[in-house]
Amino acid sequence: MLNIIKISSFAETELLFQKQYNYCANSFFMRKNLTSRADDYSKWYNELVIKADLAENSGVRGCMVIKPYGFSIWEMMQKELDRMFKETGHRNAYFPLFIPKSYFSKEASHVDGFAKECAVVTHYRLKTGDDGSIVVDDNAKLEEELIVRPTSETIIWDTFRKWIQSYRDLPILINQWANVVRWEMRTRLFLRTAEFLWQEGHTAHATEQEAVDEAEQMIDIYADFVENFMAVPVIKGTKSANERFAGALETYCIEAMMQDGKALQAGTSHFLGQNFAKAFDVKFSDKDGSLNHVWATSWGVSTRLMGALIMTHSDDNGLVLPPRLAPDQVVIVPIYKSEKEYEETVAKGQELLKALRVRGIRAALDSRDTHKPGWKFNEYEMKGVPVRVALGPKDLENKTYEVARRDTLTKESVSQENIVNHIELLLEAIQNNLFQMALGMQQSLFHDADDYETFKKIIEEKGGFVRAHWDGTKETEERIKSETKATIRCIPLEEIKTPGKCILTGGESAGKVIFARAY
Amino acid sequence: MLNIIKISSFAETELLFQKQYNYCANSFFMRKNLTSRADDYSKWYNELVIKADLAENSGVRGCMVIKPYGFSIWEMMQKELDRMFKETGHRNAYFPLFIPKSYFSKEASHVDGFAKECAVVTHYRLKTGDDGSIVVDDNAKLEEELIVRPTSETIIWDTFRKWIQSYRDLPILINQWANVVRWEMRTRLFLRTAEFLWQEGHTAHATEQEAVDEAEQMIDIYADFVENFMAVPVIKGTKSANERFAGALETYCIEAMMQDGKALQAGTSHFLGQNFAKAFDVKFSDKDGSLNHVWATSWGVSTRLMGALIMTHSDDNGLVLPPRLAPDQVVIVPIYKSEKEYEETVAKGQELLKALRVRGIRAALDSRDTHKPGWKFNEYEMKGVPVRVALGPKDLENKTYEVARRDTLTKESVSQENIVNHIELLLEAIQNNLFQMALGMQQSLFHDADDYETFKKIIEEKGGFVRAHWDGTKETEERIKSETKATIRCIPLEEIKTPGKCILTGGESAGKVIFARAY
Repeated sequence: MLNIIKISSFAETELLFQKQYNYCANSFFMRKNLTSRADDYSKWYNELVIKADLAENSGVRGCMVIKPYGFSIWEMMQKELDRMFKETGHRNAYFPLFIPKSYFSKEASHVDGFAKECAVVTHYRLKTGDDGSIVVDDNAKLEEELIVRPTSETIIWDTFRKWIQSYRDLPILINQWANVVRWEMRTRLFLRTAEFLWQEGHTAHATEQEAVDEAEQMIDIYADFVENFMAVPVIKGTKSANERFAGALETYCIEAMMQDGKALQAGTSHFLGQNFAKAFDVKFSDKDGSLNHVWATSWGVSTRLMGALIMTHSDDNGLVLPPRLAPDQVVIVPIYKSEKEYEETVAKGQELLKALRVRGIRAALDSRDTHKPGWKFNEYEMKGVPVRVALGPKDLENKTYEVARRDTLTKESVSQENIVNHIELLLEAIQNNLFQMALGMQQSLFHDADDYETFKKIIEEKGGFVRAHWDGTKETEERIKSETKATIRCIPLEEIKTPGKCILTGGESAGKVIFARAY
Repeated sequence: MLNIIKISSFAETELLFQKQYNYCANSFFMRKNLTSRADDYSKWYNELVIKADLAENSGVRGCMVIKPYGFSIWEMMQKELDRMFKETGHRNAYFPLFIPKSYFSKEASHVDGFAKECAVVTHYRLKTGDDGSIVVDDNAKLEEELIVRPTSETIIWDTFRKWIQSYRDLPILINQWANVVRWEMRTRLFLRTAEFLWQEGHTAHATEQEAVDEAEQMIDIYADFVENFMAVPVIKGTKSANERFAGALETYCIEAMMQDGKALQAGTSHFLGQNFAKAFDVKFSDKDGSLNHVWATSWGVSTRLMGALIMTHSDDNGLVLPPRLAPDQVVIVPIYKSEKEYEETVAKGQELLKALRVRGIRAALDSRDTHKPGWKFNEYEMKGVPVRVALGPKDLENKTYEVARRDTLTKESVSQENIVNHIELLLEAIQNNLFQMALGMQQSLFHDADDYETFKKIIEEKGGFVRAHWDGTKETEERIKSETKATIRCIPLEEIKTPGKCILTGGESAGKVIFARAY
């Protein structure tokens, strides 16, 4: 089922479209072909993000500007996730951007993981210096430094203490859409930036089981979203102790496979036990009158998902978007030479536009006569619009439309009577096809290794996920990482575990885990 | 017209409701009556924000936590504003949280207004100190300090330079939903906080007239939203030079009147001329080949609107919400003694719930048997739910419901056949009544003063808006402010200007302006 969006009047949306697509007009002069994935995957990614108008680097080290087109895809993601969260009883709230430095020290294991690479606010005022320039006012030094949130467990649990007294106050099921900052040294648009956008869920429960259930529910919701909206297949699993979130007892994750054979962690959900409740002294009186610490979870996905979306489906012609997340699912391009032809094709295009919108399909008509059809075709191909409909004088004559699909780059002629149903089915077909193609790609990049030599060879030559036995120790995990750059992506949840011997040490293994090099 | 929201299955939403209202269960034990507005308006406001579960202070100086109920109202506001922005061709994007210090120096008049009371990031790493505590790593000092954005003109115009070369690239119509920080010394929940949430529109145009039109369009949109959704009447006007946004040639504003006679600036829209284009060197080649600087606007509203909403409509019993922004427009409360009565009233309540939701009304059924009806009545009164429906055994017998409206605190008995239509009309009636009551309040607080003694007396004794002649000088404006704490709220747009003499100096005045003490 495709989503329904509200549309305003036809005349208004037409005008709107004219305005909106002005953003790309300029890129006409700059557009060149993309580097191919085969030539340089990394360069291809960087170019695509820029050329599809998704994001760009800013004047601030490591911080990106998310451009309107990129942001509109993120908004589609937000809308669906937000709906899923609310349907499972979560509510949005907002907590401070700044966290007092001392809060980080309260949960011992959390400190090590988070308190280090952070933006630190030390002053609260600027002044005009002697030479007329702006300088930091030394008289306005904070008594305690403030950390720009890298994640909000500490400030939220400091707040939960005030909200929770009785079992009647539980569960608390909160989500926050926010910006966070982690001072990354090497950054890449969407994949790793100093500031990024995300949602972070934080929940409090009366029992351990309820908290575990919540953490598992949320990883299932993430998997549902990523597979059914992003059309990206994922492996669900838990992290090894080494890769766990700082402060968690268990980290659930979903892992996706990119076209270059590298894995990408697409979402995590943490069972935090009573760690934060103890650190921030959050207790509740239970039905029997006993006073107990509260059980916690936290879970998040970020603008990193944009990177996963791009790297899973896109090709050497540009972005490929699954219909369910495409801001424009269909774009109609009139083809004409004379003014009369312009008027006729545009009029017919408007008819189709209306019919598609009535059906809840997000469609646009590009009737600008400042740009040639060929330019428009390239533009929408680069931007990943799932379906392009062209109509010229010949089509008017034959009562047809030319329908091109972005995923297969194929075209067909469709009769006028049949067009709306055809497109509706086509959008579903594209959504399914993208998932199937991605699944095929992921499966072709799935290998088993029963000895370390084979393991190293696969990691080096083929990439992808490698199933292998591991003795469960941190030492082995770290040695494999340092020798091959492969990490344990997850201990899969949905596979039958067969005991065996560790590929490195020969030690006992309860079941294979999944290794890969990762983003 | 009331908005349609998607609803999930009935069973799910029931469960959801059970979960969500857990947040307020605890406050039962803490709830006391509010301080009355007459006794202490300021205390009444502070208590109401806490008791209606809207927001609270955090452990971080000046930063608030927006609680789920408060945030759900903000989300309703966001949704409507976002729709209005998009219908007029604007698109959302995202720009960095941090702004290099040097950017502020680039636009001279902007510096004075903004670069001073800001959070300054000076370091990017923490480390464990000798005593095991967390300390700032002196080796990780930034070469150039970063300012946490107080507003984003500078970083956005630094970006626009890359986006704009030709007239084809214009207009650019961008909006951003974001958090901003201004280091306020005296803070109050929603009204003045160090960090707050807002939207900031930033647009670029080829001509001066287009930019002026845009700035005026946006103040009209704000007025439309505030009057028709928030039910708060506003005066549209322009600011005096002294009160203008730093860097603007003209600031348009909407001013609202609170129940205590103080004004509140509800939104501003700025015509920025070519100031930022010149500061950041943003030029475009026009159709005739000439190279010109771009014209700009910016405009914003913030979580301050929550303060305006609260202080306009609420009463000594708690929050009063206009139906168009109420997260729950209707709440159904079953009244029962026996288990059989519980089952019957809940079943009937579920029937009504379904019928209301089908009609697109946001309704909830509070079937918790952990709380007594009296507690629930108080709770929803405090939270401002527009319509409360109660049903007990007597109602079942008589085929009626008891319908109470929050605005007038009146009750009536309504027959079962008529209930849905009745509620639908009632919600519209409440929306209209709230606006009319607020308009009456505003008008009763509107005065004219033709001499300074009268002016001072009105400001001191009655408060409200005072229309008076002013000689147009900064000196007079500042003397009036220092002597009376009243500022020029605006030079009204929609009043006929009649020349006269300044109340303070007797100097020439082109027309009366509007003074008030303000939040």
